[in-house]
Amino acid sequence: MTKEVSTEAEQHQRKDYTDPPPAPLLDLGELRLWSFYRALIAEFIATLLFLYVTVATVIGYKKQAAVDACDGVGLLGIAWAFGGMIFILVYCTAGISGGHINPAVTFGLFLARKVSLVRAVLYIVAQCLGAICGVGIVKGIMKHPYNTFGGGANEVALGYSKGTALGAEIIGTFVLVYTVFSATDPKRSARDSHVPVLAPLPIGFAVFMVHLATIPITGTGINPARSLGAAVIYNNHSAWHNHWIFWVGPFVGALAAAAYHQYILRAAAIKALGSFRSNPTN
Amino acid sequence: MTKEVSTEAEQHQRKDYTDPPPAPLLDLGELRLWSFYRALIAEFIATLLFLYVTVATVIGYKKQAAVDACDGVGLLGIAWAFGGMIFILVYCTAGISGGHINPAVTFGLFLARKVSLVRAVLYIVAQCLGAICGVGIVKGIMKHPYNTFGGGANEVALGYSKGTALGAEIIGTFVLVYTVFSATDPKRSARDSHVPVLAPLPIGFAVFMVHLATIPITGTGINPARSLGAAVIYNNHSAWHNHWIFWVGPFVGALAAAAYHQYILRAAAIKALGSFRSNPTN
Amino acid sequence: MTKEVSTEAEQHQRKDYTDPPPAPLLDLGELRLWSFYRALIAEFIATLLFLYVTVATVIGYKKQAAVDACDGVGLLGIAWAFGGMIFILVYCTAGISGGHINPAVTFGLFLARKVSLVRAVLYIVAQCLGAICGVGIVKGIMKHPYNTFGGGANEVALGYSKGTALGAEIIGTFVLVYTVFSATDPKRSARDSHVPVLAPLPIGFAVFMVHLATIPITGTGINPARSLGAAVIYNNHSAWHNHWIFWVGPFVGALAAAAYHQYILRAAAIKALGSFRSNPTN
Amino acid sequence: MTKEVSTEAEQHQRKDYTDPPPAPLLDLGELRLWSFYRALIAEFIATLLFLYVTVATVIGYKKQAAVDACDGVGLLGIAWAFGGMIFILVYCTAGISGGHINPAVTFGLFLARKVSLVRAVLYIVAQCLGAICGVGIVKGIMKHPYNTFGGGANEVALGYSKGTALGAEIIGTFVLVYTVFSATDPKRSARDSHVPVLAPLPIGFAVFMVHLATIPITGTGINPARSLGAAVIYNNHSAWHNHWIFWVGPFVGALAAAAYHQYILRAAAIKALGSFRSNPTN
Repeated sequence: MTKEVSTEAEQHQRKDYTDPPPAPLLDLGELRLWSFYRALIAEFIATLLFLYVTVATVIGYKKQAAVDACDGVGLLGIAWAFGGMIFILVYCTAGISGGHINPAVTFGLFLARKVSLVRAVLYIVAQCLGAICGVGIVKGIMKHPYNTFGGGANEVALGYSKGTALGAEIIGTFVLVYTVFSATDPKRSARDSHVPVLAPLPIGFAVFMVHLATIPITGTGINPARSLGAAVIYNNHSAWHNHWIFWVGPFVGALAAAAYHQYILRAAAIKALGSFRSNPTN
Repeated sequence: MTKEVSTEAEQHQRKDYTDPPPAPLLDLGELRLWSFYRALIAEFIATLLFLYVTVATVIGYKKQAAVDACDGVGLLGIAWAFGGMIFILVYCTAGISGGHINPAVTFGLFLARKVSLVRAVLYIVAQCLGAICGVGIVKGIMKHPYNTFGGGANEVALGYSKGTALGAEIIGTFVLVYTVFSATDPKRSARDSHVPVLAPLPIGFAVFMVHLATIPITGTGINPARSLGAAVIYNNHSAWHNHWIFWVGPFVGALAAAAYHQYILRAAAIKALGSFRSNPTN
Repeated sequence: MTKEVSTEAEQHQRKDYTDPPPAPLLDLGELRLWSFYRALIAEFIATLLFLYVTVATVIGYKKQAAVDACDGVGLLGIAWAFGGMIFILVYCTAGISGGHINPAVTFGLFLARKVSLVRAVLYIVAQCLGAICGVGIVKGIMKHPYNTFGGGANEVALGYSKGTALGAEIIGTFVLVYTVFSATDPKRSARDSHVPVLAPLPIGFAVFMVHLATIPITGTGINPARSLGAAVIYNNHSAWHNHWIFWVGPFVGALAAAAYHQYILRAAAIKALGSFRSNPTN
Repeated sequence: MTKEVSTEAEQHQRKDYTDPPPAPLLDLGELRLWSFYRALIAEFIATLLFLYVTVATVIGYKKQAAVDACDGVGLLGIAWAFGGMIFILVYCTAGISGGHINPAVTFGLFLARKVSLVRAVLYIVAQCLGAICGVGIVKGIMKHPYNTFGGGANEVALGYSKGTALGAEIIGTFVLVYTVFSATDPKRSARDSHVPVLAPLPIGFAVFMVHLATIPITGTGINPARSLGAAVIYNNHSAWHNHWIFWVGPFVGALAAAAYHQYILRAAAIKALGSFRSNPTN
């Protein structure tokens, strides 16, 4: 919190970190690497486990609350399930695949040229398949309550408009993807020596926070694979109706977060201008 | 916890850390730096997101609890929303603006000469505008429940006096600003090699703790921007009545924490005296 | 989250970490070391404390909830008790015994040749004895409620089949042991310099998460010592009936996690093949 | 979790860490250092804040729950208040006073010769005075509910015997002091390079866990200053009756944890014996 005083100093030493080069749009060389397929498998398994644990928590809670309103883990427990799973899964897969587990995150990192187009598309496919399988397992082991209690699908809650739901998804995903960019910024370790980088914990907390706020509105998507997986397995009219919100919202939110990070916080635009000046700002 | 034994040793090596020079009162040079405006934008956006998520959580909870007393995230979930958002937002903005997100924190750091007067004033303006916009979005997307359930405004709860509310705000802000000073002390990394500095997590927890204790008394302000934002958008007599408590309380608490940290824990007064002695204390 | 771009670079520098050699199957030399017996004592005490705190929490909650449905720490509090205890006990004993506190974890690490057969067997014995003593203390101090409220034993809940319970135990243990492998991977520190290794926290969270999801199904075992300790002390037909599920499930889950980590994520199989190729993949 | 394999290697390199020398029993030199008085002030203020926040949370919750059984932060919120405050206060004061905030912790560290007798006695006095002031502030700001809802005092709950309460206090304090010793072990950083030392977080979690388990039995003391402060201010027969349990229990638990850490985990006894052998164990 005392970094301000070093602003001018920073100007002189300019860059004590290295930006990795932007990922190529099409990197067909990746396709020949085992590590690429390993990353796809890791995304598939992580998204499967994410949906299995979270949807099982949702259905188990609703089943208990239907009998005794005070029983079960509560909405707070559900929010913890989503946030906590993202914490441990990002922790476990960050070194294998980058730990996206969410098409909106993949889309945001693609926009920032951190992953190639090929990788982004195949990650999203792997995530969606994983989500479908994860919810499928939940339906397999708790069939009756699964169908009775809404199947974990995202829907616009009674009393809220589509616009509200879309807005909630956009801002919610903005919070998540903004945290992801902040946590993985290569400038960070150079600049924030007093704030050690613990990427997975704040990312998990971002998911936890957004669930606290928007479970009553949409059930909280901010992850198109999560919404798709539940919709495919539940396969009810109410799940597919308005399903577009859970793709458009997260992708718009990720786009906004990527733009905010690249153009405001990283000041890419200004830096480009700066090369024409004698005393460029940082 | 075993640092005591090295007290004498510390006396000899005296200072193995460097205090940054005090920030100038008026630093007009800052105004020419893009990084300064970037910091203002970061404070604006962070306070907006803080208020959006927390007030949406409060209103969403109250709406659900009105129907079924056991539903919703509970007061515990609300306390988590405030504490958890501060954790992730300090984490994300610490390297950009210092991550204040709270006029009381800015005021405390200004008193300790960590930020200039110009920066302090403009940060507070940015935070207040961000808070108003954040609450405004909540009102925009959930208008009816927003007005019905108190608008997330801070008020002195029935059964408590103004003096009690003021005292609760003072001590609550003391806890927060004391934690901020402890987390960002440059002496820290030199002294506490066994307690790695994870600034954002204890700061977020301090906010969480104070909410657990004082939500029943005032709804917990300890952040004048948060109180102002809700008061402006809710704009009800009950929100403006006693609104001064949510500025005076946090500022007095921040002043007390700054004095405690500078004069007792950093021992600035004693150190000055010490230069007149033959065997100065540390 | 930006590690992908360095995949090719990694190929050239190949290995910047060292795998410890596989533990021998029979290492009788261990038996002559005090540190080996210290590790057994540490596992015994840690499992005792784990069962004491968690089962006391379960019984205390059920006693309060029987009087007033809204009282007590709730299922969320119970899930925290299990996850939080694993966090602090792994933290405390990691340097002494490796901090297994769970026969399924020991079994998984034995399969990966991280511990010898002798050590694995004696750890499991120490864990089971510790669990029995821990639950025994709970019965000793709260005898009547202990017997009334189910003794903390794992059972297949009404409405779920044996297959469902077995599946839930397998996947739950997979989540836990997968996290353990990820947290203790020697490749990790070399690869993930931006994700500092905080092993005990995500391991504790994995236990917390699995409890949120499967307390309604089986009470959540994923730790045969925990299930055995409660079954021995409660010693009721309902606790022993289906007890095999809480051994077979966790061991199968641990086996799956070990296989996933060794053959997919560490790519042991491919690496072995790779030695026959001219341009081996990583 | 893979440390076992290096046991023999450790034997050869013996000690890659340095134990600080034991603190003298009487160190009158300390009394001439400003840093000593600063530490006393820090313990006083930290214990005051600890009791203020936690007892205010307890009273506020009980007041709300009396009106609506489902309102308020719940027992889970109370457990978080105690654990979370210890986390942030140990974090803030670790570098000033060692961050004890608890006579039982001070007693345990005195037994292990980490602090002198003079320091231990004066710390305990400062902690008790701080606790009394902290509870006094709560009574001052919420007088009526304070007296109505039990004053935050520790008592043996109906249905539990004195022996049960004493046992619960002993084991609870053992968990806490054992975690403190583990977190501050100088051997730790040398041995556990894969488990970075984050002392305050597991210590706070230990307090959180013990509260989950024993709030229904004694309200959870494990801190004689906390119990004394509430008893002095509440000053009711029920608070003083059995008050001895909340001193004897924690001190016996701290003694047991110190003995376990020094004689089993640090193997002090064996090491002394080892000097008579040709092939000493580690």
